[in-house]
Amino acid sequence: MNREWPYLVPGIPDEAFERGSLPMTKREVRALTISVARLAPNLTVWDVGAGTGSLSVEAARFTPGGRVIAVEKSHEGILLIQKNSLRFGVSQIELIHGEAPQALFGLPAPERVLIGGSGGQLEEIFTVCARELVVGGILVATIITPRNLVKILDALSTAPFSEPEGVFIHASRLEKLGKENYFRAQNGVWIISARKEGA
Amino acid sequence: MNREWPYLVPGIPDEAFERGSLPMTKREVRALTISVARLAPNLTVWDVGAGTGSLSVEAARFTPGGRVIAVEKSHEGILLIQKNSLRFGVSQIELIHGEAPQALFGLPAPERVLIGGSGGQLEEIFTVCARELVVGGILVATIITPRNLVKILDALSTAPFSEPEGVFIHASRLEKLGKENYFRAQNGVWIISARKEGA
Amino acid sequence: MNREWPYLVPGIPDEAFERGSLPMTKREVRALTISVARLAPNLTVWDVGAGTGSLSVEAARFTPGGRVIAVEKSHEGILLIQKNSLRFGVSQIELIHGEAPQALFGLPAPERVLIGGSGGQLEEIFTVCARELVVGGILVATIITPRNLVKILDALSTAPFSEPEGVFIHASRLEKLGKENYFRAQNGVWIISARKEGA
Amino acid sequence: MNREWPYLVPGIPDEAFERGSLPMTKREVRALTISVARLAPNLTVWDVGAGTGSLSVEAARFTPGGRVIAVEKSHEGILLIQKNSLRFGVSQIELIHGEAPQALFGLPAPERVLIGGSGGQLEEIFTVCARELVVGGILVATIITPRNLVKILDALSTAPFSEPEGVFIHASRLEKLGKENYFRAQNGVWIISARKEGA
Repeated sequence: MNREWPYLVPGIPDEAFERGSLPMTKREVRALTISVARLAPNLTVWDVGAGTGSLSVEAARFTPGGRVIAVEKSHEGILLIQKNSLRFGVSQIELIHGEAPQALFGLPAPERVLIGGSGGQLEEIFTVCARELVVGGILVATIITPRNLVKILDALSTAPFSEPEGVFIHASRLEKLGKENYFRAQNGVWIISARKEGA
Repeated sequence: MNREWPYLVPGIPDEAFERGSLPMTKREVRALTISVARLAPNLTVWDVGAGTGSLSVEAARFTPGGRVIAVEKSHEGILLIQKNSLRFGVSQIELIHGEAPQALFGLPAPERVLIGGSGGQLEEIFTVCARELVVGGILVATIITPRNLVKILDALSTAPFSEPEGVFIHASRLEKLGKENYFRAQNGVWIISARKEGA
Repeated sequence: MNREWPYLVPGIPDEAFERGSLPMTKREVRALTISVARLAPNLTVWDVGAGTGSLSVEAARFTPGGRVIAVEKSHEGILLIQKNSLRFGVSQIELIHGEAPQALFGLPAPERVLIGGSGGQLEEIFTVCARELVVGGILVATIITPRNLVKILDALSTAPFSEPEGVFIHASRLEKLGKENYFRAQNGVWIISARKEGA
Repeated sequence: MNREWPYLVPGIPDEAFERGSLPMTKREVRALTISVARLAPNLTVWDVGAGTGSLSVEAARFTPGGRVIAVEKSHEGILLIQKNSLRFGVSQIELIHGEAPQALFGLPAPERVLIGGSGGQLEEIFTVCARELVVGGILVATIITPRNLVKILDALSTAPFSEPEGVFIHASRLEKLGKENYFRAQNGVWIISARKEGA
């Protein structure tokens, strides 16, 4: 059990991660992404656009005996993923410093693909991920722009994927307001997923 | 690994549970409640107002070696909890057929308390739960009415609890609309929690 | 002043309209659509996919001396628009029984276009509306599918339109729950608008 | 017609108002508050906690021949209300510089009461407003804290008020994100209202 998060559940608080100047998937969205990804032992997971590595760290905790391959283009991100891996005692994250989709070529075929950042190249990234994903594997994308939402819905609606599942999450967090409380809104996020069907 | 849900993550789909005529905590809220509850091995968990047992089943999976005590007043609920325990291969759920707070007396002190249904007796239930909860333990309530929200915020804002955390979750699910998709709104839910501090 | 709604403001309650079996833009979305449309006296307004006429009725009340041209393909809709016009004492609604975009040809050029239902032909409808809209006029679309959202954002992002404005509205209404209250979620709606710039 | 807003509809854009350092009711919430208030000619309106006067200005536009009494405790607010009245060519706003509920004593009885800011004295303010409100009049409160929500729901659920109506509004606004768009969340607001019944 890790001292920073000595629990069996996903959804590590945001502030527990080192995050530098990078944006980070919020706890609520991260917990649900991990849920939707249906992680299990011994799986190989790609985390594309890994950022701070917060999702990679959580994914690693739910794939014991497996591999989490974190692909990240920024130097700052690579350092943060290393720090956060260390902090949470996670040893199976492999770092790929490069930009998707190019950086994905030659990686071991994944049973799960998590797409966070896409840097405007969602289609190209999707094409490679969809091809490399093993049959029965699951692709999950977290999306904040309407265009990427439609792209991923279209992409996951065609063979060889099953009908996509999706959820829009609007979370607001309790904060103090003088002696009272209110709920501070976070921006909504779409989490879209589908399973790759057999031949 | 259970055949119905052979994964390590919380957030079992709603339709995987037997639910009869009872309302059920939706998957997204259930996954986040499990996250916020910070479950770990060997813990004793009370699930107060257990309903179909969907939360109890998920809690049991994240407290290996522990106990989940499901308190439910309806006969239908008790039967459903048994069925769902069996379906998901969960053996450590103990059933208490009765109404909280009376049904809580004499139960083993919990390290975690999950309050779902309260049948209009939230204060009385809270008083017993707060007293019996071990120091360092966590209480989590899922709330749908404004009055219960204020009650639980007030209750968790006073000693011996730490400052409460809370999140309001508004989830909408992808559904077909002819050849297109839309997102169907679920009702918002507040998830409020706090830790019991030492003396 | 009309007996059914003797007020100067938009946002007539849903139940005040006769609606038959047709879907209806909800009060909250209707009030905001009227706001975003910046209605004023003497304007000619197209209401494309008018449905029950609830939006046409409200538009007519804010364009005294103007014309509201309600385009609706269903026979039931046409009858409902007539009934609702009568009920709210609105005389300037002109009915066009037909399907857009064909039904739009030859209509007087509008200063405002409201696009509700599009029956899967949003691009074709948009093309005609954008061409016929007078310079300085405003187009407003209420959208429920992600694909139509992207289509309208793209269409309104190009000349001769100004940068589009948009808002996503998630409204939940107070309802009784036993002796208590809760808020029942409506589905989210996007309201997107832009002004046609001069040559 | 005013040059700043030459339209007949409510929902003036936020940036059109002078706002100094004061918080301001957002356009979407303001438009819906005006709608729910069912404004009409010749009414006397109290705007309690008027802030920048944005709501007072909009209310004045929908109560021709009536009076809008803006009650505001801060000096900055009073100056802003004057500036905004002038900017939008609204002449019937009367300023009361003082703190509610004390500042409400002796004011002409209102047909509409709008409660925005309450400075932690919602009950006291409500008591005076409810007493002074004429029979058939409407009280509307915009609320951001759970405690005030429950207080106003309780207050409006008892005689002489009709069953309260309420809506929770979660609006997100279109913004640029590089070449793409996303929707930036505003905090949710509850708008609660009821009518004072006859003896």
